[in-house]
Amino acid sequence: MNLDTKLPWLLQKSNIAHIEAGAVLIGDRRRYPWERTFVTCSSVEQVAQAIRGMVTQGGGPLQVGLTTMRFVARRIEAGDEANRLSTFIKAAEQLSSARPTNTTMRRTLATIVEHLRPYYAEAIPQTDITGLMDSIVTDIEAGFDIDYQKMSDAGAQCISDGDGILTTCFAEHSFILSLMKAKAAGKDVTVFVPETRPYLQGARLTAPSLEELGIPVQLITDGMGAHYMAESAITHYMTAADVVAMDGTVVNKTGSLANAICAHYYQIPYTVFAMAPDPTIHIASDIIMEERDGKEVLHFNGKMTTLKTIKGRYPAFDCIEASLVTSIVTPRGLALPQEIRALYQQDDKK
Amino acid sequence: MNLDTKLPWLLQKSNIAHIEAGAVLIGDRRRYPWERTFVTCSSVEQVAQAIRGMVTQGGGPLQVGLTTMRFVARRIEAGDEANRLSTFIKAAEQLSSARPTNTTMRRTLATIVEHLRPYYAEAIPQTDITGLMDSIVTDIEAGFDIDYQKMSDAGAQCISDGDGILTTCFAEHSFILSLMKAKAAGKDVTVFVPETRPYLQGARLTAPSLEELGIPVQLITDGMGAHYMAESAITHYMTAADVVAMDGTVVNKTGSLANAICAHYYQIPYTVFAMAPDPTIHIASDIIMEERDGKEVLHFNGKMTTLKTIKGRYPAFDCIEASLVTSIVTPRGLALPQEIRALYQQDDKK
Repeated sequence: MNLDTKLPWLLQKSNIAHIEAGAVLIGDRRRYPWERTFVTCSSVEQVAQAIRGMVTQGGGPLQVGLTTMRFVARRIEAGDEANRLSTFIKAAEQLSSARPTNTTMRRTLATIVEHLRPYYAEAIPQTDITGLMDSIVTDIEAGFDIDYQKMSDAGAQCISDGDGILTTCFAEHSFILSLMKAKAAGKDVTVFVPETRPYLQGARLTAPSLEELGIPVQLITDGMGAHYMAESAITHYMTAADVVAMDGTVVNKTGSLANAICAHYYQIPYTVFAMAPDPTIHIASDIIMEERDGKEVLHFNGKMTTLKTIKGRYPAFDCIEASLVTSIVTPRGLALPQEIRALYQQDDKK
Repeated sequence: MNLDTKLPWLLQKSNIAHIEAGAVLIGDRRRYPWERTFVTCSSVEQVAQAIRGMVTQGGGPLQVGLTTMRFVARRIEAGDEANRLSTFIKAAEQLSSARPTNTTMRRTLATIVEHLRPYYAEAIPQTDITGLMDSIVTDIEAGFDIDYQKMSDAGAQCISDGDGILTTCFAEHSFILSLMKAKAAGKDVTVFVPETRPYLQGARLTAPSLEELGIPVQLITDGMGAHYMAESAITHYMTAADVVAMDGTVVNKTGSLANAICAHYYQIPYTVFAMAPDPTIHIASDIIMEERDGKEVLHFNGKMTTLKTIKGRYPAFDCIEASLVTSIVTPRGLALPQEIRALYQQDDKK
């Protein structure tokens, strides 16, 4: 399956981010699906600001980070930045700290810096840096594409004909590809998509992307999942993970915990897609949870939901204990949450 | 505690509905909290239409129904309606069928008709009908006020100092009075209010009403309750009930089931406020669940949340099995859900 041509608009690489006229253009997920527009960033700081401002989210920042490293190489070649390893280290740090919970971006950008280190020990000519960076990033992207294919092969096998699948937020490549492969294999599924307040990623990103693929969608509010589990209309819960700890604890968008508990109550499997566990996070208590500004829950797309004086709370992510997770789909195959450590601890090869 | 002077604006009787210049004025809950305005209805049919159009909701239609019966008496006295029992029977039917799930209004209006029947057997003079109706309605309201006081006495006792209380939707008099009495008794509580999509009754009605009373509020989205249960910030779940079946099954606003399951998982008590079980509903399967137009979940206050082509689902209510309910607060005191039948089956006195 050729990824980029078949994926929905939102997941095609150039629509997540690309370089154009000396700037990084980021697909603006805040305006999607009504508009397919891009935010133009002329510096790494502007990219970091766009990430903090939720122009992109989920797996978006990773692709934006890769594109921005290529942008930095071009700025060096143009003489706009110093041709030093520290230029990349600083950029990686600026990008990584713009979305601290997403450790995949941090680890990937650190990998790029490590790839560059030996070259800088011998001093890279300014004219070579763009080609070198493009080749490093292309290899990394190819690796991710292989991982997505492996994960979605396993994911599609977890899906049964007639399934009603609940998700949360926008579970991106592995989940979307799993659904595409299940559909191609003749499995009829309906996806129940909670709108995912406050930013409505479910309503705005997941539902239109699935509709684009011809996969039946039922959009619900965030509290309705249990209702359809009780009616047996929902038979499977599937999400991505922002982080998986080595003990099998899963971190994902707020709202995921409630659905996981309800799935557990109704004995419905909960399948999680994860590129890899985070080797630096051993147990749940190592996870630092991001609590965002509570004012963000008082709005819907700029419109107030209540009085300005009311105090809101916005825990951006939920921490889901391993006992609530049925299985984790990784590029190394399907694992029980308690098997994740063994699957990943011996080595760090992908 | 004098009810009407201390209650938040939204629950004061005259703000739910009152008669002014020959019309019924209904407090418009769709525009609250930004505006405190009234919809003017010059006929029973216009009142029914306002109820169907969600101008008022929850316990609102009951108070509107009582006010409308007084309005009909005044129209008879003015010679605008026939001075017959059937005039009231027709009005009661029009009002009751405007909100079929709320059986308390239907039963209460039927009681008024039964009170009038012996008077009409002897023919009431047109000049007496307003006074007679005012006295019947005043008695009924006094009965409800006594019930609210009894329920909130029991409710306040269920609340502990330091509690974090999760609710759903707008649980009205018994819940609000319980919180007021707990506060008066020196108990510090924080109420976690889910916004309650799609109509945002939590954000628009509950949160501003609690703020008006000086009770600390944390507004969250509908999927966040479990997060704060896991953190032990939420220690109690409390809601009203649209219906309680004789087997202890509770029907309440969509989203209540997920929170009840999560409360059960974290061993947090779930307390339900109910005027009485419905004697016609014996077991859960007798409950007819209203599924509203799925298009309603695609909007926020007139603004689309996704593309128009997406299919939404809107189960208006959840059915919560008795095993998930810790206790039910009734005017007859606190009961376990399995005790409700015994508490109410022997007699029909209040």
